[in-house]
Amino acid sequence: MKEEALYIVIAKAIEQQIRNNVLKIGDKLPSIRTVKREYGVSMNTATRAFFELERKALIESRPQSGFYVSRHSRSRLPVPTTSNPSVLSHQEQAENLIDKVYRSLNDTSITRFSIGVPANELLPIAKLNKSLLQATRTLDGSGTAYEEIQGNFKLRRNIARWSFTWGGMLTADDLVTTAGAMNALSYCMMALAKKGDTIAVESPVYFGILQLAKSLGLEVLEIPTHPITGMELDALRKVLPSIKLCLVVSNFNNPLGSCMPEENKKALVNMLSEHEIPLIEDDLYGDVYFGENRPKPCKAFDKKGLVLWCGSVSKTLAPGYRVGWVAPGKFKEQVIRLKLLHAVSSTTLTQEVIGDFLENGRYEAHLRKMRRTLQANSLHFTRAIHDYFPEETRVSRPQGGFVLWVELNPNLNVPLLYDQAMRQKISIAPGRMFTLQNQFNNCMRLSYGLQWSDELEKKLAMLGSIAKKMIR
Amino acid sequence: MKEEALYIVIAKAIEQQIRNNVLKIGDKLPSIRTVKREYGVSMNTATRAFFELERKALIESRPQSGFYVSRHSRSRLPVPTTSNPSVLSHQEQAENLIDKVYRSLNDTSITRFSIGVPANELLPIAKLNKSLLQATRTLDGSGTAYEEIQGNFKLRRNIARWSFTWGGMLTADDLVTTAGAMNALSYCMMALAKKGDTIAVESPVYFGILQLAKSLGLEVLEIPTHPITGMELDALRKVLPSIKLCLVVSNFNNPLGSCMPEENKKALVNMLSEHEIPLIEDDLYGDVYFGENRPKPCKAFDKKGLVLWCGSVSKTLAPGYRVGWVAPGKFKEQVIRLKLLHAVSSTTLTQEVIGDFLENGRYEAHLRKMRRTLQANSLHFTRAIHDYFPEETRVSRPQGGFVLWVELNPNLNVPLLYDQAMRQKISIAPGRMFTLQNQFNNCMRLSYGLQWSDELEKKLAMLGSIAKKMIR
Repeated sequence: MKEEALYIVIAKAIEQQIRNNVLKIGDKLPSIRTVKREYGVSMNTATRAFFELERKALIESRPQSGFYVSRHSRSRLPVPTTSNPSVLSHQEQAENLIDKVYRSLNDTSITRFSIGVPANELLPIAKLNKSLLQATRTLDGSGTAYEEIQGNFKLRRNIARWSFTWGGMLTADDLVTTAGAMNALSYCMMALAKKGDTIAVESPVYFGILQLAKSLGLEVLEIPTHPITGMELDALRKVLPSIKLCLVVSNFNNPLGSCMPEENKKALVNMLSEHEIPLIEDDLYGDVYFGENRPKPCKAFDKKGLVLWCGSVSKTLAPGYRVGWVAPGKFKEQVIRLKLLHAVSSTTLTQEVIGDFLENGRYEAHLRKMRRTLQANSLHFTRAIHDYFPEETRVSRPQGGFVLWVELNPNLNVPLLYDQAMRQKISIAPGRMFTLQNQFNNCMRLSYGLQWSDELEKKLAMLGSIAKKMIR
Repeated sequence: MKEEALYIVIAKAIEQQIRNNVLKIGDKLPSIRTVKREYGVSMNTATRAFFELERKALIESRPQSGFYVSRHSRSRLPVPTTSNPSVLSHQEQAENLIDKVYRSLNDTSITRFSIGVPANELLPIAKLNKSLLQATRTLDGSGTAYEEIQGNFKLRRNIARWSFTWGGMLTADDLVTTAGAMNALSYCMMALAKKGDTIAVESPVYFGILQLAKSLGLEVLEIPTHPITGMELDALRKVLPSIKLCLVVSNFNNPLGSCMPEENKKALVNMLSEHEIPLIEDDLYGDVYFGENRPKPCKAFDKKGLVLWCGSVSKTLAPGYRVGWVAPGKFKEQVIRLKLLHAVSSTTLTQEVIGDFLENGRYEAHLRKMRRTLQANSLHFTRAIHDYFPEETRVSRPQGGFVLWVELNPNLNVPLLYDQAMRQKISIAPGRMFTLQNQFNNCMRLSYGLQWSDELEKKLAMLGSIAKKMIR
């Protein structure tokens, strides 16, 4: 991976000051000249750093005056607290909530802040259809034939090629395709653990992961997790002797939006390697980054083949295509065998379409556009939450992905808020869904993978006013 | 279901005499006049019965002489013996064989009698492509969106509608779609049994079922199975107290080609119901019947919701589409939940295509053609086996499906024959793959789902001559 340009380094340093509230909304920034002197860089570099911050809407220029921290910078709302899961499991309550929320997902009359996928408007549907037509011409039997068990070769080759964006050295042979990322996680868990084994996960974590682990009879250990830097490694270290495997959503975790810093990823992989503990890495949001570069996955630091790197295009191209994959390291044969036993092979057509899409550079072009839209959305959302939600609201700072984690007044019961919001045709994902413990009852996940509009702003305002009323 | 026409009943009676060797190849049949008198039917009905037998190539007319049992009637080769599985498990040997055979499946330079799917030439590829184009126009987001967890509604509605062919009273709500029939079996097994439970299956049985059950930690009980009438119910009755669930491929079982008579199906369902034992019914070949009507599945006799009826279009339309389904009876919620946990949903596009294909009557038209081709193929194959294989060869009598079960001299080692045949670019499926016991070492499964040609005939002749040499 290339070195970061100097102006980016500077922009990041200033951004950090804004995020840490060293620089507050409305504060005047040092002049470009000061930055030039302090960092020992050219005028040009200093200017570019400011432009970068402006592009990200963190600062705004005022004519004849200089640069100021913008109110879009989201620095007012503090980040949610690091989770501290207890040991009691309250499985049933979460399941009921999940069922309730899922039932709302097909009703298009509802504003679905609860949904975890991008809206149709964000997807390159016409271009995918072109690739589909192409695939019926290229494929043996127009895609009616069984695909190789390991998966469509064009798709695997292009995922391998694409891994250069994070310095990956994968080959087509390292990869196994699956019916989406959850399907990849399912094969990984089945390959690595048996009933009674313990799996360590982030907390909060995507409920599908929790429910899958429970359904396989695994014991789930929820590890305290920071809303910006992800799983707390010190907490994990303490339980290492008792766990069989670990699972992290390393980049733009759902529901927190957290992204483990590179050094944490390295440390995590090393720590687990020492104990020969496999790591399932769900990296399905990694391509949707708002920064300059794609964050590396833990897989980039895997020397022993212990990291099973999972991904999909369900969050970037086509959830309904059911195209995902895993680079299972040294567990490849087990994963292929499980795929053969449970599903024989993956859908031939949709794999070929995605393979083609990646090969022709359409994926990259699409992602560039999508990232810009999502970053703008995330800023719209945080600003609206700042404007309409109760004073003590905390909100996460995703640097990629689709979701925000909102922590409300500790006395506010979000499952009740869910019911009230649904009466206004607004659906949210209550925090309680993302844990097997009795926690996060005052939290919610909001998806900003929706087309921004005045209507959406109104719905967020309504949500905020419901919350305010409930506190009173 | 409609009553069988009288001429069919008569044709079947005569067919039975041919199959039981009461009438042998070259035997002259009674005259049409005699049949008219004996059965007390019109001349027209008697004539139609003979035409029916002639259509099936069981008899042939000789000018000015009458009708004779044709050499296509396959009556010379006796049917294979009823299986008698022992209790010892020899898992590893079967796995190695399966791996070996699977590796040959992508090599198109090999004549693959080992393959379990129809050749491209038998599939309605152009028409499927039309439905695909239609689906991109009909579907929300051209099929990029997640489908309902339970499955595409159009597909479910049309499978339900189609169930009228066997007197089924299913509704769309009774069905859950899956990524093919094996995927349906996987959810069913996971929903019904846990590690250590015992499952009763036919013997021989499709190896995927055996391997899946073992991988889930189930104990597999192989029940003696007759090559024409399927699982021996008396043998099953004896082990009922020890089994948790039962699985049958009721219609044109793979690899035997057996089809349980209706009264056996009824008896099986009743027997299991008394003990509240669920029955997983894999009915993926039922639509490919050679007779007048589709044989009913066990599901038709299910009063308690204990039968989980599974199917797919992998053997009739498009293996690579990964479209299958299950009507899980009273276990529906468990199955839906497992689908959600392991795969979230099925591929939207291919489900819609198949739903459309069924809705527009294209499926029926296609099946009519395919059945004729496959029946003709089955006769070509049996005739060729009769002509080229060793004297003591036994062969099954499939009345539908794609596969023949061939039993050779007890001293002949078919796994060795496999290796020799592969040197001639011929691949077969050794019988040993279809059991966890040490049996069927002198058996093989041959698929006739291939386009018949002189080339194929030559390959069968080569196979026969290899077998003859090995016996000498």
